[in-house]
Amino acid sequence: MSVRVHGAHAIVERDGFRDEVAVEEPLEIRVDGEPLAVTMRTPGHDEELALGFLFGEGLIDGPAEADLPPDLAANTIEVRGPLRADPGRRRFYTTSSCGVCGKGAIDEVRVHVDAPPAGPIVERELLAALPDRLRQPEFERTGGMHATGLFDTAGELLCVREDVGRHNAMDKVIGRALLDGAVPLHDRVLCVSGRLSFELVQKAAVAGAPILVGVGAPTSLAVALAEELGLTLCGFARAGRLNLYAGAERVG
Amino acid sequence: MSVRVHGAHAIVERDGFRDEVAVEEPLEIRVDGEPLAVTMRTPGHDEELALGFLFGEGLIDGPAEADLPPDLAANTIEVRGPLRADPGRRRFYTTSSCGVCGKGAIDEVRVHVDAPPAGPIVERELLAALPDRLRQPEFERTGGMHATGLFDTAGELLCVREDVGRHNAMDKVIGRALLDGAVPLHDRVLCVSGRLSFELVQKAAVAGAPILVGVGAPTSLAVALAEELGLTLCGFARAGRLNLYAGAERVG
Repeated sequence: MSVRVHGAHAIVERDGFRDEVAVEEPLEIRVDGEPLAVTMRTPGHDEELALGFLFGEGLIDGPAEADLPPDLAANTIEVRGPLRADPGRRRFYTTSSCGVCGKGAIDEVRVHVDAPPAGPIVERELLAALPDRLRQPEFERTGGMHATGLFDTAGELLCVREDVGRHNAMDKVIGRALLDGAVPLHDRVLCVSGRLSFELVQKAAVAGAPILVGVGAPTSLAVALAEELGLTLCGFARAGRLNLYAGAERVG
Repeated sequence: MSVRVHGAHAIVERDGFRDEVAVEEPLEIRVDGEPLAVTMRTPGHDEELALGFLFGEGLIDGPAEADLPPDLAANTIEVRGPLRADPGRRRFYTTSSCGVCGKGAIDEVRVHVDAPPAGPIVERELLAALPDRLRQPEFERTGGMHATGLFDTAGELLCVREDVGRHNAMDKVIGRALLDGAVPLHDRVLCVSGRLSFELVQKAAVAGAPILVGVGAPTSLAVALAEELGLTLCGFARAGRLNLYAGAERVG
């Protein structure tokens, strides 16, 4: 059996069987030489991932400088500090689906975040159609990728990232927006290909995105946090329909 | 809008809209009074979750004692040590989909684990039918739960757990087996309702389960680890079919 990596996917071959699978590899995020986080991710857009992750955790408030090492196989990225907050003894160990990582106690699970401003108002039909507009070539190859898309309020796709980890896909989109000077995302809609967890709602909120749409189900804590922060949260967006869980005032 | 919790699911109501969603809440795992991990999970079977998690991380080798506090809403569980290994400065911060958490550097992502012994041999058709035998009442309610099932080699379901986190569902099943004195799971098959990550393969291997079946896609690292450890890994198990990625010698 062999596993050969080609960018974001790998080809598995064995006795005439051949399949393409999503690449999963660890990335160590270091700040000023100190290891801070290990995340299981699909390689590519690692700078976006590191910056989006640190931003979502409230540790940077803009695009810090990040260096990939000359040897990409080293799977590390170095971010230059200083950080906004002291991670202290906390270490962040994240996996391909991780977002809350780094909180030392339950009451620290939450990052401080302000509610987004009122508006925009977007038609329900347009929101329900966003998943169909997510381009997911690596998912089509492998069946094993999550995606996050950044849309404008007319439904145009501005950025999409795929990753084995759904939180990584959102971190990459937000990291890209940070590098482009586009945060806060007050006039934007985020759409994810999967379920809606507490952490995804929190990441969207920290980036200032007022509307979050998911193809899958939300959790209880995702709904409660969206309601508390005044975020618009839509789940089960498929086949032209969606469930509206919070923030109805932005849905026309 | 209201979110009322009823065990593993919650009822969301707003303006005539009503839906059932998966409950997601943090659980802090403490060992000898020290906070070690925070995981986002569906409440219930928390002792199994804590023990399965610590076992999968190589920190205990049997059913340690665990106490839930009198106030369940405190969302903490206390495990009595000592631990087999010193987590040292490492802290474990896990989310609803987390498994690798707690490794301070990339070369520590792996827990030491021996290959399972040869056998058993199970018919391909039986393995492909296991997902249909997973009982998932909370998924049916909410659309937002993962499941892990423990099966014998005749395809009988011995234990199933559902959770918002797929790693938690497997930790709970393995924690239950630990409490029942049933580990290592050398004559058992584990079946998960979703994708197959590196961490899930590692958890199965640490518990000694020789065959892991998933409804979803495997990642590159999941395939490579299964091959290296001699684990049988089957993905896309649906509609009576599956893809066999590693360990073909156990499939009849």
